[in-house]
Parts: sequence; structure tokens; C-alpha cells
Amino acid sequence: MATQPLLINGEWRAARQPVGEFRAEDPTTGEPIGPAFPICGEADVEAALAAATAAAAALADTPPERIAAFLEAYAAAIEADAETLVALANAETALPKQPRLSAVELPRTTNQLRLAAKAVRSYAWTQPVIDTAANLRAHRAPLSKPVLVFGPNNFPFAFNAIAGSDFASAIAARNPVIAKAHPSHPATSERLAQLALTALQQAGLPPASVQMLYHFDHAIGARLAGDARLGAIGFTGSRAGGLALKAAADAAGIPAYMELSSVNPVFLLPGALAERGAALAQEFFASCTMGSGQFCTNPGVVIVPRDAAGDAFVEAATAHFAGAAPGVLFSRGVLDHLQHGVATLRSAGAALLAGGDAGAPGYRHAPTLLSVDASQFLSQPNALQTEAFGPVSLLVRADDVAQMVAVAAAFEGNLTGTLYTAADGSDDDAWSKVASALRSRVGRLIGNRMPTGVAVSPAMNHGGPYPSTSHPGFTAVGMPAAMQRFTALHCYDNVPEHQLPAELRDRNPGGVARCIDGVWCIDDIDLGAQRG
Amino acid sequence: MATQPLLINGEWRAARQPVGEFRAEDPTTGEPIGPAFPICGEADVEAALAAATAAAAALADTPPERIAAFLEAYAAAIEADAETLVALANAETALPKQPRLSAVELPRTTNQLRLAAKAVRSYAWTQPVIDTAANLRAHRAPLSKPVLVFGPNNFPFAFNAIAGSDFASAIAARNPVIAKAHPSHPATSERLAQLALTALQQAGLPPASVQMLYHFDHAIGARLAGDARLGAIGFTGSRAGGLALKAAADAAGIPAYMELSSVNPVFLLPGALAERGAALAQEFFASCTMGSGQFCTNPGVVIVPRDAAGDAFVEAATAHFAGAAPGVLFSRGVLDHLQHGVATLRSAGAALLAGGDAGAPGYRHAPTLLSVDASQFLSQPNALQTEAFGPVSLLVRADDVAQMVAVAAAFEGNLTGTLYTAADGSDDDAWSKVASALRSRVGRLIGNRMPTGVAVSPAMNHGGPYPSTSHPGFTAVGMPAAMQRFTALHCYDNVPEHQLPAELRDRNPGGVARCIDGVWCIDDIDLGAQRG
Repeated sequence: MATQPLLINGEWRAARQPVGEFRAEDPTTGEPIGPAFPICGEADVEAALAAATAAAAALADTPPERIAAFLEAYAAAIEADAETLVALANAETALPKQPRLSAVELPRTTNQLRLAAKAVRSYAWTQPVIDTAANLRAHRAPLSKPVLVFGPNNFPFAFNAIAGSDFASAIAARNPVIAKAHPSHPATSERLAQLALTALQQAGLPPASVQMLYHFDHAIGARLAGDARLGAIGFTGSRAGGLALKAAADAAGIPAYMELSSVNPVFLLPGALAERGAALAQEFFASCTMGSGQFCTNPGVVIVPRDAAGDAFVEAATAHFAGAAPGVLFSRGVLDHLQHGVATLRSAGAALLAGGDAGAPGYRHAPTLLSVDASQFLSQPNALQTEAFGPVSLLVRADDVAQMVAVAAAFEGNLTGTLYTAADGSDDDAWSKVASALRSRVGRLIGNRMPTGVAVSPAMNHGGPYPSTSHPGFTAVGMPAAMQRFTALHCYDNVPEHQLPAELRDRNPGGVARCIDGVWCIDDIDLGAQRG
Repeated sequence: MATQPLLINGEWRAARQPVGEFRAEDPTTGEPIGPAFPICGEADVEAALAAATAAAAALADTPPERIAAFLEAYAAAIEADAETLVALANAETALPKQPRLSAVELPRTTNQLRLAAKAVRSYAWTQPVIDTAANLRAHRAPLSKPVLVFGPNNFPFAFNAIAGSDFASAIAARNPVIAKAHPSHPATSERLAQLALTALQQAGLPPASVQMLYHFDHAIGARLAGDARLGAIGFTGSRAGGLALKAAADAAGIPAYMELSSVNPVFLLPGALAERGAALAQEFFASCTMGSGQFCTNPGVVIVPRDAAGDAFVEAATAHFAGAAPGVLFSRGVLDHLQHGVATLRSAGAALLAGGDAGAPGYRHAPTLLSVDASQFLSQPNALQTEAFGPVSLLVRADDVAQMVAVAAAFEGNLTGTLYTAADGSDDDAWSKVASALRSRVGRLIGNRMPTGVAVSPAMNHGGPYPSTSHPGFTAVGMPAAMQRFTALHCYDNVPEHQLPAELRDRNPGGVARCIDGVWCIDDIDLGAQRG
């Protein structure tokens, strides 16, 4: 049977020797929808890798203006095609068209592409550093090798392998991208790839700058991830899948940036609860169940003091969860994983306060609230940090601030950690103690708002210590910061001025921020002063 | 028999359950010198790791002023003790007292410590990025875990595990350091550790901030490198040893920064050779044999056109090498490795032009020059890129610029790549072609000087693509750049202003360069403008 074509080396062409095929499913019914897509074998993977490798040098030498033009044309094409894209994504993911897909995620995606274009035009991502006395000049440069991007199931636009943050980061840094779409939304990914190819052709980038594969099995994935022709890997997904790919990449010396898992602890300090516990229960419930809780930064563990205000919060939160309809999940796999996670938490001593059951038809699960004593959490910290990806959260009841601190210190690496404090300053001391224990365990420390919002900002850190990600020093969101993952540090030592890249020459190409002899400025290098 | 004590948790104490002992050797004779040092077993490694882990939070909270004071006091102590240190290092390494140890390496080491102190005081390494609209503030922060540093044999001061660039980078970023000295210069390392401890006590840092182990076996090394309590590893040494440690670290999600190997190709373009071939032969010989060629950036492969000027260069270089006395190497291991490397090169078709033999007494090897056709190089690129660490270089004779480009494109990742060009511009086209092929394969592209000089500069890149190092994005030399390896990215999202680190607050603590809303400046954040 014919399957949808792959985008390889600038052409839509049939899979060669695919090992199988698959279709998307409507998560609300579990029924297959849309056309069949190929599961690639070695031949297609090799073709994509060879084409990307051959294109890498030409892309690295492409003028920034053309990269920026591609990103902006692509953003505009996504906007022009929004209705179709949103309909496809809604059908494949069951995420609501409004506001989520239309008003939040799609604009976020186009904004991200445009911010990447801006970073390209300003050279901000290259971070030029110049030592005039030694005549040493360094900057960040393309890897000159392909970047393999694995998209997750939970953001069909904003983290899509062919439109999201990893994609935008990698290609803005002038690296070819081999996009491995998530097989739960292939038609959305195909539509995006069509728009990307047109924009690519308009901008005159090498044809293999952007390629699209929909699916391959674990063995081929591991072989590809360990191929020395790759420059880097960007991955967002499950811990088990990510670690298998990371192991393959590590053995070949390939930097692999994996966003793996996180339970995003939220500490409700006593004063905050006393001040506005009912509002916090509502805010927590909304954050935990939005998008059926399928966020990397879902508040999966909430630490609640064992006092009257804490009891009231638990009662209110339980009522919210108990009264909510089951949420639709992306797939059978997500549902299975969630049920397994809830079972693990219950086996480790967590009591069920609300929800707990799958729903029908399709892939549904009730918003689920569990609770455990802090002493029990501290006795089984690993099991009780199991990520239950979906509308699930575990309340940890702590006797006092000292026990909250002990719980904070028991967390493994997470993307975020949140503290809610009283406006009157009565939690200040508790903040200091809990934050001190939590700070090094999370990438983003948050005050008085839920972790599910991830602003696309140069000051964002959507990252964190292992095992939330594979490296504590990088963010997957925010331009130009996220681009840094897909760059190499290049130094020019006594290189003739006319052989230097534009942003390292004496004359500033125009408003580029450069660190010259320790001072950030947008100046030219004063030849008279230096050489006179 | 008693062995020298270890520095663990602020005390010099005897090894517990060591698995053996060793002594340094005089490389000029091969005879053991100095006292016996312990080969640690599990007990000491565990004690050091536990103490460093316990100290990490306190060190991360230490005011920058005290860290800077430690680094400066340590630098001053090294200077005051220079005579003893130089004598010890000379005896253990056979590196000349003058100029190398006294006038070059020791001042470089103290300068590096002081530049680290300067980076601490200026907060330059923290790279604050602030988004006032979103109230997001990010900076680089300590790992809050110990850093394990493995020092190499070839720089008893400047890369010593307890005094060199990795050490200075890691502790300046407020991480405890477990120093694993190189066993070829234990007494030098012990003396440095004594000075470090005194400086540490003066500055009031936690006792376990700096600890010293001299030796352990590969199995214990791998177990330590894979211990999840570690924050990162810095390593300079052999490829085989580094990759074994990297594999252990990778499996535990620990960033491992390994500087592994490099042959540092040097391209002598036709015009440069015609213009000043004799001078280049002298410059090349001096660079290749200085310190008996035991540099990471030794010019190990030199590409020479097959023309009259090229022939003259080869003749002159051969005469230099043939007329030179054998150089003293650090150890039996270095000599064995060198002989193995030369044998590999010869097996792959390289012809011997000069040298080739070991000398006596002790560990000596003649400066050795080999030659091979470019076509042969291209047919066996892996074998002919074998690093022969020592005073050895391979000349590759290329028919024309096109063949030089092909050779450039055949190199694996290297620390450096060098091009020599004519002053009259006649090599400009050749430069463009060769540099284009070479650029992405090296960390530092050098014009018209030999690679062996590595300036301690913020614009340096002492790094490069795999397998020269384990990550293409970082440098091991240059402050504050080298510190970045030992930091985590921390974001503060809507955190109350008084709970922020000093350099992220509205008021600039004083001259700190911060990127505020996309612009680097040293301004305060204008509360009126932002919140009015």
C-alpha cells in the first residue's frame, strides 16, 4: 500500500524499503485517522543523513540574511495556513483549537521562528569575544554537521521537530536539520514540512537543509544517533527513549541534548496558604489539568503543610479534581505510561484522593490527586518522584518547614521548582531555607506562579540538572540561548583580518554586541589605537 | 611502609586501605626519586567524595570576595615558593627550569589564578540575562556538586589538577575540587596542595573545597567518574584513558570535559614557503621539539607542497631534526606510546627522514621527522593521524592546493589548525580553500604562527571537535570562558527581588555586565520605567 512520501534532499519521495507503516489516531476514539505513513528502514535514514552531511558546509556558509528570510517566510506561511494546521493538530492530538492551538501554541511557534531570525540578523547567538592585544577572536559557529531533532507528542507546533524550538535553534545556527516527527501527529508534521520546503526554496537554502522522517524503530534510531556524521541531537520525550539515544550518541562523541522528565515540585509555604489557599487550589488544578496535564512542566508534586490551611487546600483541590471530567490523552502509550506511574506512586504509599481511573472512549484518564506523608516520601524518594505524565499530581504533606526543606533536598534534577509565598513577608525565612535546598536541583526557580507557562525569552531556562535533561548548562527554549546547543566554539588566532567572519572583523557589521578586551560594546575596533 | 599523606577534608592524613604505592622517577635516568605516595583504594576516594559533597552547598553560598581572595592568596604563595616548586617539577619532569618552568609556566599559572579571581570579582562568568517584561532573570551558577579534575603529565603547574586551568575554573565557579594529580609529578602536586590548603584556610573556605589524591587504578577511576554525586569532570590526558572515564560519566549523566588528543595540522601554503621557507623550517623545528614536543598543540602533521620551495623546506627541517640531541620524555609510558605511534605511522607508509630511535639513559627519544605522500595520507587517514606525543612530526607532501584541501577535509577533530601564508597576498585564494575545509575540524584556526603557544585569554579556544575533546562548545583555557564548563544555568522566574542573587537584582552590584532586554550594559534596572 502506498504511504505518504518523505522529505529527503528537497524532494517528496516514496520511502525505500520501509519496515512498516502507521496511521495517526483520533485520541478521543482511538480510531485510526488520515493516511498511512512509512516506518523508515536503513535506506531512507542513510539517504537523509548523507544528503544533510553533503549540505552542511554550504549551509554553514550561507549569508545570515538568507537564513533569517527562511525563518520569517516559514513563520508567515504557518500563519497563512493556520486554519488547516490547527484542524490537523486538533484531530491528531485532541488539544483544543481554542485557545490552545490557535491562540497560544501556533503564535508561540511563529514568534519563536521570528525571534530566531532576529538572533540571526543581530549575530547575538555568535557571542563574539575579541582580545586585541593577543589578536585572538572567538565566536560561536555552525557545527557544520546535521542536527537530528526528535519532537515530542505534546506540542504539535511549538516543539515539533520541523517547526519548534530545537528546529529553529539548530537551523538558525546554520545546521541542516533531520526532523524525526512524533508519530502521534504525522499529518500535522507533514503539513509543516511542506510549508518549510517552500520557504526553503524561496530563501535559496540547500535542499537538504530541512528533511522529514516520520518514524523508525529503536534499533535504527540508536544507530542513527551514534553516527559520527551527526553534529548534535535535540530530543524531547520519555526518559527511557532519550537515554537509549543518548547512550548511542555519547559513545560517538555527539552532544545529545535530551529533555527527559520532570515532576516540577511546588512548595506552598504556610503564609501563602493561609492568605489565599482557595485561590491556590484553583490555580493548581487549572495548571495540572490544562492540556490534560501533558506538559513537561506540569506540577506533579505539591508540598503542603500539615496545618489547617493546608487541610483546607487539600479539601478544595480534591473537590476540583473529583468534579472534573476525564481528560483526553495523546495515545495509548501515554495512557499506559500514566497508569503505570499512578500504580507506582500508590505502591509506594500514596493514597488516592480523587480520580485514578481511565475513561472511554479513546484514551482518557480522570484528573487524579494523590497524597502522601513527607516522612513516607523521604523513605521512598525515587518511587515517589515517578513522573505520571498527564493530569496527575501528588500532594506531600509536611509537618513543618524543616520537613519541607528535607523534601526539597530529596529531589533529583527537575526543570522547575516553585515556591508560593505570603505577600506580607511572613514566608521569607521559609523561602530562604526551601529555595536554598531546591535551587541547585532545578533549572528554573519560580515565585508565585505555576510552572506550566514557559515564556520564549532569552532569560528563560527550559532545562535543568540530570535526569530532567542531559546537561545542566543549556536551555531548550529562548532565543538566542537555545541556539548555543547547536554551535561550536571557533577561535581565530592571528588570522588576517580579511579572512575573518564578518562579526569578528575590526569594523562592526552593524550593531553587533561584542566583548572586546573584556567590555561589551557595539564599537569598531580602533585600528589607530591598537596599532598606532 | 609509610607513604605521603592525602589531603582530605582539610587534613593531611594517611591513606586508608591503599592498594599500593608509587614513586616519581627522574626521567633523565629512569631512577625513582622522592618519597612513596599511596595508590588509593575505595576508602579514600569515598572519603574525598563524601567530604566534597557535604561542602558543596556551603562553597556555592560563599561570597565571591572570599573565593577571589583564595585564588589570589594561592597565586601569591606559589610565587613565594617558586624556587622549591620549580626544583621539584624539574626533578620530576625534566622540563628545564629556565625559561620553561620559572619564566613561562609558573607565571602563566599564577596569572591564570588571578584572572579567575578577576572573573569572580566582576561576575563576568555568571553572564546575567534579564527580561524585565517577563520578570525572568538567568545566570550561570555553581554546580553545587564536586568537580573531579584529572591533571596531565605535561604541565606540572599550568594544568596541574590542583593549580591549573581546570582547577581554577572549577573552584572559581564555587565548586569543590577533587584533584587527581598526575602520578608522574606527585611531589610537585603535593607542594602545591600544601600551599592551596593554607590559602584556603586564610580565605575561610570550607575545608573540603580542595582535596588531593595522587593515584588510583582504572577501575576505581571509572567508578568515581560515574558517581552521581559528581557535578562534572575535567580531564587532560590520553584518548584511551579519557574515553574510559567519559563512558562512566556519560552513563550517570555527568558532563565530562575531556581534552584527549590532537595532531594540529599545519599547512604551509606555497607563497609562504617560497617567501621564507628556511625561517619556517627553523620555527617548525623549535615548536615541535620544545619541551620534547610534549604539548597538546604540538605540530604533529605538516602539509608541504611538492615543489622546489617545499623540497628545500623538507631538506632544512630534516637537517634540524637530524642534528638534534634526543629529548627527555616524562616517563616510560610516554616513551612507549611515542614508539608505538611512530611504528603505526611507518606501518601506514610514512618514511623516516630523521630520528626514529629511543635514547639513553632514562626516557629519551630522538626528534623524529617522517614524510608521506598526500595520496597515501588520503588512503589511510586514520592511521596517519595517530598522535605520536613527543618530538615527532609527519610531513605530508601535496601536489597542489586541491590536494591540500583534500587532506584538510580528511582530518578528524583537532585542537588547532594552522596556515602559513605569503605576505604579498599570493596565498589568499589557497587560504580560503584550505581554511574552509579545515575550519569546522579545529577549535582554533591560526595564521602564521605555530600552535604551541596557548594564550590565557577570554578569546582563546583550547578545545575542538571530537575526538580532540569531548564537546565542541567549550574551551579549557581562558577566563572566564573556561569556567562555563563547571556551571549550571539558573533561571529565576518572578522571584521576589530580595531573594535574588546579587547580580540579578535591580541594582547592579557594581560594574557587572548584564544583558538586559537584549542590550549589554552595566545599568541598574529602572524600577520607575519598568513598573511606573
